[in-house]
Amino acid sequence: MTFTVKDNIDLAGHRTSYGSPAWRDTHPAPVHNAVCVDQLLAAGARCVGKVIADELTYSLDGESQFFGTPRNAKAPERIPGGSSSGSAASVANGLADFSIGTDSGGSTRVPASLCGIWGMRPSLHRVSEAGVLPFMPSVSTVGVLAARFEQLDAAARVMLRSGPRTVAPHRRLLLLADALEVADKAVQGQVCAALQRISRGIGISLEIIRFSQIVAEDVPLSDCNVKALRDLQSAEFQSTVGNWIETTRPELGSTFSMAYGNVRRFDRIAALDSLVRCERFFERINALLAPGTVICFPTTPVIAPVKGTLTTLDAVLDFYDRTMTITAFSGVARLPEISAPLLTVDGCPVGLSFAAGHYQDEFLLAAVRGMLG
Amino acid sequence: MTFTVKDNIDLAGHRTSYGSPAWRDTHPAPVHNAVCVDQLLAAGARCVGKVIADELTYSLDGESQFFGTPRNAKAPERIPGGSSSGSAASVANGLADFSIGTDSGGSTRVPASLCGIWGMRPSLHRVSEAGVLPFMPSVSTVGVLAARFEQLDAAARVMLRSGPRTVAPHRRLLLLADALEVADKAVQGQVCAALQRISRGIGISLEIIRFSQIVAEDVPLSDCNVKALRDLQSAEFQSTVGNWIETTRPELGSTFSMAYGNVRRFDRIAALDSLVRCERFFERINALLAPGTVICFPTTPVIAPVKGTLTTLDAVLDFYDRTMTITAFSGVARLPEISAPLLTVDGCPVGLSFAAGHYQDEFLLAAVRGMLG
Repeated sequence: MTFTVKDNIDLAGHRTSYGSPAWRDTHPAPVHNAVCVDQLLAAGARCVGKVIADELTYSLDGESQFFGTPRNAKAPERIPGGSSSGSAASVANGLADFSIGTDSGGSTRVPASLCGIWGMRPSLHRVSEAGVLPFMPSVSTVGVLAARFEQLDAAARVMLRSGPRTVAPHRRLLLLADALEVADKAVQGQVCAALQRISRGIGISLEIIRFSQIVAEDVPLSDCNVKALRDLQSAEFQSTVGNWIETTRPELGSTFSMAYGNVRRFDRIAALDSLVRCERFFERINALLAPGTVICFPTTPVIAPVKGTLTTLDAVLDFYDRTMTITAFSGVARLPEISAPLLTVDGCPVGLSFAAGHYQDEFLLAAVRGMLG
Repeated sequence: MTFTVKDNIDLAGHRTSYGSPAWRDTHPAPVHNAVCVDQLLAAGARCVGKVIADELTYSLDGESQFFGTPRNAKAPERIPGGSSSGSAASVANGLADFSIGTDSGGSTRVPASLCGIWGMRPSLHRVSEAGVLPFMPSVSTVGVLAARFEQLDAAARVMLRSGPRTVAPHRRLLLLADALEVADKAVQGQVCAALQRISRGIGISLEIIRFSQIVAEDVPLSDCNVKALRDLQSAEFQSTVGNWIETTRPELGSTFSMAYGNVRRFDRIAALDSLVRCERFFERINALLAPGTVICFPTTPVIAPVKGTLTTLDAVLDFYDRTMTITAFSGVARLPEISAPLLTVDGCPVGLSFAAGHYQDEFLLAAVRGMLG
């Protein structure tokens, strides 16, 4: 199998750009591959190149001001999604069997959904992050994107260091109602139709559950993002990339600069409650997701926006807030999540996601294989 | 409460040395505190200073060639242990109520044991590592050291973001036989006497278990270190600090240089089996450590060696191999572990460790509180 490597993951002898020419030019080329790269090479996969990442991987849209916008093969007039934009595009355009990217707020799942390929965000910290550029240590994972499930499964198992193991049988299939409601009506219809088909196929009835039931608090799903994960991300981004920016004053792109302005002004002390909330959500979501349980939702609430339309604040907020309301669920709960390219709206792809409890990556892979029939 | 900060954890406006003058002089002072520091400050603790770390935190002895050897308050002619040597010494000498350090191979637990204070290595990745210097992402944790249990408990809960939560009742008390057997005879006697007292006190019988039973393989406990964790550490150290050393050729101390020589020659591809073994041990150990279960063992096999005696290869190997045979158990299994200053041999302190399943940090804190009576 051939694979590409997102340009925030080290390849020996090549400078790692982290999506930023300034970062690339101020950091020497590593002498070692990232651990995950060596795992894949040793398993017999062949690396065919590095691919574009959004600037400092801090974006979900895939429109890089410095390196261009990778082509969304199935919807060429639309964005590919980011920040693993080049990973998704290299797979969807047939340049590689799979790609390794990263995912903090959705950076593997979102481009997989918008480009119509498979994408997996493993459980937080199941895959070694050594040689992967610092992003947000409590949030970021190495991810994998692939054209076919078999390729995703094989690459993931190598990086997960699964070995042979037995997993729980698939017993429960849940639909996260709040995530469905965030999605466009046409996406909702596709999700429901696909899940009814899957439910019948595996003989497990679909149970609908609300976020407030899971966490036993009268709060909306969006709290996973705006009152939990987003604040943790901002605090950790300040302490990693933020220190680099403040002490070296690098040249930054205008889109990133605008986003970073918010991080810069972010009051990390006022946000410490959000960090406690993350842990509470983590505990309660994982209490529900016992071995044998899969929870489903649309990966993104929409198909890919048309290129150049994320220009007004309203458009940006609508795309980011709705998308991250969904992606933050697996984020706070450290869940493994697989986005499957099963849905089509207006001729454009959108993903259906399956998630399981923290560290139940092998169960999730087996359950998804079973659901494909 | 007052606290000190190990010098691989960021304090805004102060250069972070990582125990290395070369690192300190080539990295600008951060503008943000580490997230864990801000958590403690916001909770009302007062930071009274930064303290010595072993060079690039790659040591367990606490004899820094550049910054000196912090004083072991209860055994002044002996080493304090490392790499959180200054953390342990600042607490044991009464300069602070608690200290935050880090722990990859034992760097919080070992100095706590040898200096006769409390030390906790939380579950891997429960405490934010943002603003803590890169060590080994699959192995390293922020740790806490304190003179009294109440201080340890309070500081840990802030960094763990525990909030109010209920925990399982303490039901099982296990003794890891292989770890006991690695220890000096006098330490063994102390461990058994203390555990019999504790077992009677809480009315839970002590069960003795062997590593081979836990992992269902006929392998010695030392495999946790030499055929699993140590190789993962070496691979990740190459991809983090190793890249820095190879590309910038900094001035290194002679002791560290010797240790790094082994890392440099380390064949990461040949060692990939060890990474798979880590995951297998993780899974099997945590299958045993269901909520309600505590497993015990001596923190270190010995009291602190006399200063200047770790000079022959035999002496170094004896100290490191025996110590890490024990400390790697929690390392591979990502367990929370608390070293309690309950034992004394030849007038010198040595710790008794209690560990619980991954992410059961709050249960472990409650169980240890219960065992103290």
